[in-house]
Amino acid sequence: MKAAVLRKMQDLVIEEVPEPSSTPPGHVKVAVKAVGICGSDVHYYKEGAIGSFVVREPMILGHEVGGIIEEIGEGVDLPVGAVVALEPGIPCGKCQHCRTGEYNLCPEVRFFATPPVDGVMTGYVVHPAEYTFLADGLTPEEASLAEPMSVGVYACREASIHLGQRVAVLGAGPIGILTAMAAYAEGAIVSLFDVRKKRVEFACSLGFSAWPFRQGPDLKYDRVIDCSGNRDAIQWGQSVVRPGGKLILVGMGAKGSMLIDGLDLASRGISVQGIFRYSNTFPAAIELIRRHRGKLAAFTEKRIPLDELPTYLASNEYLGYIKTIVTVD
Amino acid sequence: MKAAVLRKMQDLVIEEVPEPSSTPPGHVKVAVKAVGICGSDVHYYKEGAIGSFVVREPMILGHEVGGIIEEIGEGVDLPVGAVVALEPGIPCGKCQHCRTGEYNLCPEVRFFATPPVDGVMTGYVVHPAEYTFLADGLTPEEASLAEPMSVGVYACREASIHLGQRVAVLGAGPIGILTAMAAYAEGAIVSLFDVRKKRVEFACSLGFSAWPFRQGPDLKYDRVIDCSGNRDAIQWGQSVVRPGGKLILVGMGAKGSMLIDGLDLASRGISVQGIFRYSNTFPAAIELIRRHRGKLAAFTEKRIPLDELPTYLASNEYLGYIKTIVTVD
Amino acid sequence: MKAAVLRKMQDLVIEEVPEPSSTPPGHVKVAVKAVGICGSDVHYYKEGAIGSFVVREPMILGHEVGGIIEEIGEGVDLPVGAVVALEPGIPCGKCQHCRTGEYNLCPEVRFFATPPVDGVMTGYVVHPAEYTFLADGLTPEEASLAEPMSVGVYACREASIHLGQRVAVLGAGPIGILTAMAAYAEGAIVSLFDVRKKRVEFACSLGFSAWPFRQGPDLKYDRVIDCSGNRDAIQWGQSVVRPGGKLILVGMGAKGSMLIDGLDLASRGISVQGIFRYSNTFPAAIELIRRHRGKLAAFTEKRIPLDELPTYLASNEYLGYIKTIVTVD
Amino acid sequence: MKAAVLRKMQDLVIEEVPEPSSTPPGHVKVAVKAVGICGSDVHYYKEGAIGSFVVREPMILGHEVGGIIEEIGEGVDLPVGAVVALEPGIPCGKCQHCRTGEYNLCPEVRFFATPPVDGVMTGYVVHPAEYTFLADGLTPEEASLAEPMSVGVYACREASIHLGQRVAVLGAGPIGILTAMAAYAEGAIVSLFDVRKKRVEFACSLGFSAWPFRQGPDLKYDRVIDCSGNRDAIQWGQSVVRPGGKLILVGMGAKGSMLIDGLDLASRGISVQGIFRYSNTFPAAIELIRRHRGKLAAFTEKRIPLDELPTYLASNEYLGYIKTIVTVD
Repeated sequence: MKAAVLRKMQDLVIEEVPEPSSTPPGHVKVAVKAVGICGSDVHYYKEGAIGSFVVREPMILGHEVGGIIEEIGEGVDLPVGAVVALEPGIPCGKCQHCRTGEYNLCPEVRFFATPPVDGVMTGYVVHPAEYTFLADGLTPEEASLAEPMSVGVYACREASIHLGQRVAVLGAGPIGILTAMAAYAEGAIVSLFDVRKKRVEFACSLGFSAWPFRQGPDLKYDRVIDCSGNRDAIQWGQSVVRPGGKLILVGMGAKGSMLIDGLDLASRGISVQGIFRYSNTFPAAIELIRRHRGKLAAFTEKRIPLDELPTYLASNEYLGYIKTIVTVD
Repeated sequence: MKAAVLRKMQDLVIEEVPEPSSTPPGHVKVAVKAVGICGSDVHYYKEGAIGSFVVREPMILGHEVGGIIEEIGEGVDLPVGAVVALEPGIPCGKCQHCRTGEYNLCPEVRFFATPPVDGVMTGYVVHPAEYTFLADGLTPEEASLAEPMSVGVYACREASIHLGQRVAVLGAGPIGILTAMAAYAEGAIVSLFDVRKKRVEFACSLGFSAWPFRQGPDLKYDRVIDCSGNRDAIQWGQSVVRPGGKLILVGMGAKGSMLIDGLDLASRGISVQGIFRYSNTFPAAIELIRRHRGKLAAFTEKRIPLDELPTYLASNEYLGYIKTIVTVD
Repeated sequence: MKAAVLRKMQDLVIEEVPEPSSTPPGHVKVAVKAVGICGSDVHYYKEGAIGSFVVREPMILGHEVGGIIEEIGEGVDLPVGAVVALEPGIPCGKCQHCRTGEYNLCPEVRFFATPPVDGVMTGYVVHPAEYTFLADGLTPEEASLAEPMSVGVYACREASIHLGQRVAVLGAGPIGILTAMAAYAEGAIVSLFDVRKKRVEFACSLGFSAWPFRQGPDLKYDRVIDCSGNRDAIQWGQSVVRPGGKLILVGMGAKGSMLIDGLDLASRGISVQGIFRYSNTFPAAIELIRRHRGKLAAFTEKRIPLDELPTYLASNEYLGYIKTIVTVD
Repeated sequence: MKAAVLRKMQDLVIEEVPEPSSTPPGHVKVAVKAVGICGSDVHYYKEGAIGSFVVREPMILGHEVGGIIEEIGEGVDLPVGAVVALEPGIPCGKCQHCRTGEYNLCPEVRFFATPPVDGVMTGYVVHPAEYTFLADGLTPEEASLAEPMSVGVYACREASIHLGQRVAVLGAGPIGILTAMAAYAEGAIVSLFDVRKKRVEFACSLGFSAWPFRQGPDLKYDRVIDCSGNRDAIQWGQSVVRPGGKLILVGMGAKGSMLIDGLDLASRGISVQGIFRYSNTFPAAIELIRRHRGKLAAFTEKRIPLDELPTYLASNEYLGYIKTIVTVD
């Protein structure tokens, strides 16, 4: 089968790799159909590393995957032929984090396309049944959105969002918009902010109340969720959190140190919470995608065949789209 | 009656003020017996201000108060003659913060010895019954500790401390030690840290596991509670929080901006929580003082009469004690 | 002004009562426009009592109110002419329940149309500003739904409903349907159950997955919310809660004792939670009504003028409607 | 090695069973030294079953175990010779309950001395390292208390006990007393109740405020934790929960159906929570045993050698002790 193998920084090739030869008990073999391109794939491609994760040997890219069950191992009760989404991280199931339900923090987790673990931009993948989720009624392209949607679902859960709360989401890229959808689906009144006019317009076209950064109505928010990783955004975000509210930092964008006003945190009773990946989110993410199929159409619109990925990534063209999905035959 | 009136920065006098003439319905008149000197009293004395709170007209100092009920207003069911602790902040009871139980964030709160509200270093104070707490079995000096103990109780509650968790408390001054007691009383395994050798020794003498700053066993903590306000301490504190853990910032010590490693927060799923004062803590604080009477003896050892307060504050002598209590006849 | 005064059991008259003569500081005078008839109004009318609340002297009925601000007292920052919903219970603001944010449990609460406190089926009512909520964009009839919607909002909040959870609501009367809307708005996958075919059909017509009692798909629910007060329903409800899930009992319907399988609770780690009224729900309820204006049209369809209320209640005709709203000129 | 094998109801023998032949990777081989007798052991012995768990083939009894590490498997970082406590239930690590941290509800859990899984009243047991907990500074007898203490720790955690809350524990048997210790260690003000005078006296001798059932001060409790399984106790327990409080049902004692006043639950906003076993409690339980070594001496006082267990259980003598521990050479 073909695979998109990142040999080293800026050296991506489509090459033949061996197809999985068997499906062990408790596992499924999934025919990959659609893989979303994530910012992390682009980082590995362009820079060969994210923080301490360095590409030292060839690695298959991709971790946002929708596919179809091809074969099931012994003891698995999932239907062959079903559309599924795969949770990309397999935790150890034994450490203290796993035992307390925060398996996203498992130090032994094996996560697709995080060195040295291969990703899923290839023909088939064998995966544990318990991290394989039925996506009835969705296309594989839509199912591939369950992974980025999980980021939003988890951020909103950690943020303890309740019905009627005011939530600001900073950054209207894919994660920002999916997070805004999750916040809305938890009952929040959501505003999106971005420095890029085009993104603000796109968010508005989806029905969101979206604003250029630092503009919008003069009010405080119960929760501010940063999906931009931008220090100015985060600093402004803190200033618009209401007393007793929360500032949530999603993802790895927030590089290195930044200035936080500690006196403001203490004198207004505010907390800043970092979010790493997600746990126990896929069923909720899939449900959310079902609810928002119409709005999410734009997310699955731009598709390129696996063979064209190297050229596409080299071209920078992908930056023009909210989301590009790699299709596999 | 006499009162310790701060006329302006570094101008503290003991002068006659009018005794409260009546006790309205729902209120009690309390004969003040003991008032702990808090860092904030010293700040107002020395600098005339804390942040945006500025002493613009003469103000009586003191907010850590133990006394005896002298008279009760109509409808009050509290026994005359009882030792009580007074919660120093009276919230509006109507705003959104008050209605959701986080009345410490009430913007209309009237708080003893926070300009322009008078404090309690005087003979009598009239106070709402619902913010007056029986301290059966305690002396007024011990009752006066309910206020600083409340800071620790609230910090631990917000930190969601559970039985068996590892907690580091940074700063072994009065608030640090009382917070450590509260954490221990919630079942935590507590370590205290301070840069000052004398404070470490004092903490050890109380039975705590205490260490010079940055030393101690090489482990991570479920919760790190900063009571030092020191930037270096906070930065080190973040580094010893376990993945998924919490860093708690207590009090106004943390002046202005400080560097927080945002990537570390996000990649380890950590949160930083600011704590402002407290709410709903006095009964718990009083119970805790009852449990630790022996250990708390050192906190009520150093006493000076109200008349001597101006000389005492001018002398810097108070810095040698864990706590000094002003006594009122 | 006219008022619907319940003199005693089954003796309801429309009579003149004095209009409020002034609007004190911190209060608003509201022209009542629409008052929903609640099951409790009917209980007081038919039986003269609910549990320990007995109608001993004439009392104005009604507590689900939408109106228009007529006049504001000193210090109030609300616009005259605005459509508002009134929260019907005014707590003391001082007791332990009030101070911890669970003011629905305040023993001193004064609640519209709960003896001996008058309700709002009359021309004008003077109300504290902090329990008066702007309902911009809603009609007074829609605003009157904020009260019953609050029951659903609070039940869902206490039930800790999260995105993607499966929730069963037992009873498809007004409270059941509004609770189902609230659960959906918190992201739940909701099923409604009722013994009456007509109610099941109505729920289906609103787009809900609704089933005759004990039927529907064979699965377990994360949360079961009983709005029926029926013992059989509650017993069945417990049997379809998943291990670790919650059974929620809403309202006063659940009369007296009932059999609970305690061994089942303990061996499956289930909890049963009683819900009394609500606190801090009105802004969320109003937002929810805004989101569901279309679906809620059926709730505000049946209206009768205040003058006709006595005849209407005597006729039993109201039982044919999901909700009847009394209109006041 | 010898083992206490329950062949069938009331037929317990000490017989030779094969010693484990190897210690697989990730496992430890533990020399059993002390095994507490639990009510469930006695139930299986006397009745051959607990609920749906029926002894159908010979089974070794015992699940409260303290021992010494004899050998470690590959990849295990625990010191040979150390005193340890073993968590008796090994969950699957994969199901939804396991992934969300509530592994006590795992339907695939294998739990010592729960048919058909063998217990630990024998010479050696091989156990996964992650469910083996160092009990430094404790004797094996003390370490064997970590299991019943875990029941109390978990009940208190689920009950959300905070500093200063009033807690009533119903039933002053071993679980009741250990639960009371856990509640105290979380900062609660605890009262114990029992119908048996001797148990009340024993609880008092440990320093608890203990009372004959239905007696004691006339007050309401924030939390009532039933460890008696007695219907009268539970009913009284509900009546002394404060509005908004919780009634907790611990363990399998609560046989079958019981009457709960549903109207009372709803009108006072009370919840009833069932507790099944525990999860993530052992480190906390061990810490708690360390804190209370003195008080717990009475729990480890009565010891009998493994060989004498059949005679002892047949004699009913064990009922005279708070706890009997089987010792193994």
